[in-house]
Amino acid sequence: MNNPEFSNQALSHVDQQGKAAMVDVSDKTVTQRIAIAEGFISMSATAFDMLKHNQHKKGDVLAVARIAGIQGAKKCSDLIPLCHPLMLTKVQVDFELIDSRNSVRIEAMCKLAGQTGVEMEALTAVSVAALTLFDMCKAVDPAMQISGIQVLQKTGGKSDHLKAKNEA
Amino acid sequence: MNNPEFSNQALSHVDQQGKAAMVDVSDKTVTQRIAIAEGFISMSATAFDMLKHNQHKKGDVLAVARIAGIQGAKKCSDLIPLCHPLMLTKVQVDFELIDSRNSVRIEAMCKLAGQTGVEMEALTAVSVAALTLFDMCKAVDPAMQISGIQVLQKTGGKSDHLKAKNEA
Amino acid sequence: MNNPEFSNQALSHVDQQGKAAMVDVSDKTVTQRIAIAEGFISMSATAFDMLKHNQHKKGDVLAVARIAGIQGAKKCSDLIPLCHPLMLTKVQVDFELIDSRNSVRIEAMCKLAGQTGVEMEALTAVSVAALTLFDMCKAVDPAMQISGIQVLQKTGGKSDHLKAKNEA
Amino acid sequence: MNNPEFSNQALSHVDQQGKAAMVDVSDKTVTQRIAIAEGFISMSATAFDMLKHNQHKKGDVLAVARIAGIQGAKKCSDLIPLCHPLMLTKVQVDFELIDSRNSVRIEAMCKLAGQTGVEMEALTAVSVAALTLFDMCKAVDPAMQISGIQVLQKTGGKSDHLKAKNEA
Amino acid sequence: MNNPEFSNQALSHVDQQGKAAMVDVSDKTVTQRIAIAEGFISMSATAFDMLKHNQHKKGDVLAVARIAGIQGAKKCSDLIPLCHPLMLTKVQVDFELIDSRNSVRIEAMCKLAGQTGVEMEALTAVSVAALTLFDMCKAVDPAMQISGIQVLQKTGGKSDHLKAKNEA
Amino acid sequence: MNNPEFSNQALSHVDQQGKAAMVDVSDKTVTQRIAIAEGFISMSATAFDMLKHNQHKKGDVLAVARIAGIQGAKKCSDLIPLCHPLMLTKVQVDFELIDSRNSVRIEAMCKLAGQTGVEMEALTAVSVAALTLFDMCKAVDPAMQISGIQVLQKTGGKSDHLKAKNEA
Repeated sequence: MNNPEFSNQALSHVDQQGKAAMVDVSDKTVTQRIAIAEGFISMSATAFDMLKHNQHKKGDVLAVARIAGIQGAKKCSDLIPLCHPLMLTKVQVDFELIDSRNSVRIEAMCKLAGQTGVEMEALTAVSVAALTLFDMCKAVDPAMQISGIQVLQKTGGKSDHLKAKNEA
Repeated sequence: MNNPEFSNQALSHVDQQGKAAMVDVSDKTVTQRIAIAEGFISMSATAFDMLKHNQHKKGDVLAVARIAGIQGAKKCSDLIPLCHPLMLTKVQVDFELIDSRNSVRIEAMCKLAGQTGVEMEALTAVSVAALTLFDMCKAVDPAMQISGIQVLQKTGGKSDHLKAKNEA
Repeated sequence: MNNPEFSNQALSHVDQQGKAAMVDVSDKTVTQRIAIAEGFISMSATAFDMLKHNQHKKGDVLAVARIAGIQGAKKCSDLIPLCHPLMLTKVQVDFELIDSRNSVRIEAMCKLAGQTGVEMEALTAVSVAALTLFDMCKAVDPAMQISGIQVLQKTGGKSDHLKAKNEA
Repeated sequence: MNNPEFSNQALSHVDQQGKAAMVDVSDKTVTQRIAIAEGFISMSATAFDMLKHNQHKKGDVLAVARIAGIQGAKKCSDLIPLCHPLMLTKVQVDFELIDSRNSVRIEAMCKLAGQTGVEMEALTAVSVAALTLFDMCKAVDPAMQISGIQVLQKTGGKSDHLKAKNEA
Repeated sequence: MNNPEFSNQALSHVDQQGKAAMVDVSDKTVTQRIAIAEGFISMSATAFDMLKHNQHKKGDVLAVARIAGIQGAKKCSDLIPLCHPLMLTKVQVDFELIDSRNSVRIEAMCKLAGQTGVEMEALTAVSVAALTLFDMCKAVDPAMQISGIQVLQKTGGKSDHLKAKNEA
Repeated sequence: MNNPEFSNQALSHVDQQGKAAMVDVSDKTVTQRIAIAEGFISMSATAFDMLKHNQHKKGDVLAVARIAGIQGAKKCSDLIPLCHPLMLTKVQVDFELIDSRNSVRIEAMCKLAGQTGVEMEALTAVSVAALTLFDMCKAVDPAMQISGIQVLQKTGGKSDHLKAKNEA
């Protein structure tokens, strides 16, 4: 990085030689941390109608995706090599069916009192919930697309930030 | 589903009452199955430059994401509730750095001789690799976005399809 | 062992010295195997009414337990030390609310084409589904009881058997 | 819940709409929590005799079930979707062979200093230990039954309770 | 690689660019494969005496290590990134107490009918059993050493080999 | 143990009857704990040259082993039955290529603020990294040997110790 503009910035998960390195959070303060992430899965009108129909019938599709998302958040440090194991105190996964775009918006919120942020856990919850919806709808529309996965809000750490809700 | 147009279509992962149901693949033929999926992570110019710099230095960032993606494919049935456990014979994860858009394209290929397709495994590999890149670059750009996750190709089953490479 | 009638019987999972031993299934025939298991969770009238109310509202309680049971079946060889890893082709978990006894009957069915039976997988699905119902209802009734977990049917192996449905 | 009798009670693991929801324990006090659970597996006289014989020979059967139970307690949040990940400080699994009923009583105790009770961990330890005994004895008696799984004692939280030992 | 003698040899788990690559076993024949591995843990006379005493009392120490080794073999593809998931048909772990050297010899055998060898599974079983012995004896001797982990025999593949038993 | 010389010593992971028992760490102080472990894998000159060549080309071999080691440390309590689940705050895995002996030295360091030491986590990281190197080099040299796995340093608990670097 010879550009002085970002001389005080660096990838946090590699060492001086560029080798993979878990961040040492031993000396970070334990604070209440919250992160919210979102993502979208868009599908054909037919698949979307079937998903809505299942929801109207109070079928299980969204429940399965919600559970998968919650379980996914708990597996984050097993999936992402340099993530720390954490004891989440709350995971919430919500869905919004967006008729105008035949897409489902997924939002996940994670909380813990700990030494490191939980945005990766929230992003993992969103991703796994999206993959689960893909799995359950793929017989009807194999050409679905998952997109717009990002962090909306992160509080409790040094680098809090708040992002406008994605209009994708 | 009162629309006769798709009367012979249905969500495969719910029963008549809309309840979650694993598809019974007991009587499906064992064939050689391949699936290819892709996805993108876009970031700031600064983060992208750092990622490129790490790659030029032959640092570990892409290697970590590749390993995470391969391991993610193997964990698919643990993450996605109605997926069948499978014995993948090959998983490959590749990256392409797209300068014009400060984004990384991730492509995953999965293979097995089995009774069910492997597109969920390929999509999971892409998703976990993308999340791992997010994790390693988030200190520089917390506003990255993961998008364009979709199946490019699926062969070996009844519903083969081939999609043009995403220009997203 | 004082009964000579079954002197050729032995615990299959220990060796001559009584030491733990995984059964060698290398030479067993691959056949289509099915097992069905059941179990019950009984609770207070109040907890049972709430569970019924949730079901009437098409709430998620049974869906969560169903998913947990299906995932539990897939984790069987990870939980039970001497079980073989298997590639289940189908897992199904059903619930029956028994008003007369304020209890829920759980039935799980597992299938695979393989060299060893799947009754442990079906029993694990029942157990994990029952534990999940316990978890979700325990705030209302911490004195619930799980009982009557047994194999109802097992086919495809040398020792098929069929049991009358438990009237417990 | 329109019945005023239990208007101040509710299933803790679903939201107002009956959807699955992990309880938020972020603001609960960290206290020393202990839970004890029990369960039984009953079998034929022949199987019970073989189990006793193995124990007399100091064989591994109970050791395998004990280890499986301890490991099961540690996997609780992976098995039960809405359970929080916890850092257990102690798990103990004990067995009592009850000659008069050809059954084994399993008792598990779990401890931690944390924000949520550990009765699900103790119940999971009992269940997995029982399933492991089933697995190891099923060649001799495929008609065994697991029953009487319940919480005996729970301390350290708001809703402590103590139950008389099950006479099943 | 400037030595022409082994120009047709290469690390099998990296591609032409040296990047991590899972071997494609899709076209390999399914054969009966067996691998045997061994390893040693040496300790102080005091720790070794206690281990022997536990064994004489028919205590659980070796049983715990045996179970851990068997479970470890089943987790191999989860631990070693480029290993294929396999369905082992048999895992066996044995111990030999070597008085003359205050050490324990661990031998593990793995079997399956599959497309790839099982030496990594056998080595993992040995390693995890050794680590478990270390864990259980470390209060008495924290300076133990694990050594001599190697493959003794591998059959069923193209590259069978047989090694003299380690005299380490 | 009737030898008075070590009457105040005992295997910590078994009870009075020699049965497996997880140590109760509920009342131990939370302190900053660090452990460092090492191990070696020795191979043929050919395999070692290929490994060096891969490293010179900045290939992925060491990166894969490093990631596997870090992930292994996080899985320690899942692998070793009587280990407590822990929330590691840092894991680091380093490699040293020793030309004179055609061997690779692996060193792992683990940290956490907790009630129990982390030497098993460091030893597991070393073991899994060594197994991963074995997996990636075994096509060239199936006769490699893993050895010299031991704890170099342990601080933060009652039984701190420091060992001279292994010259094995």
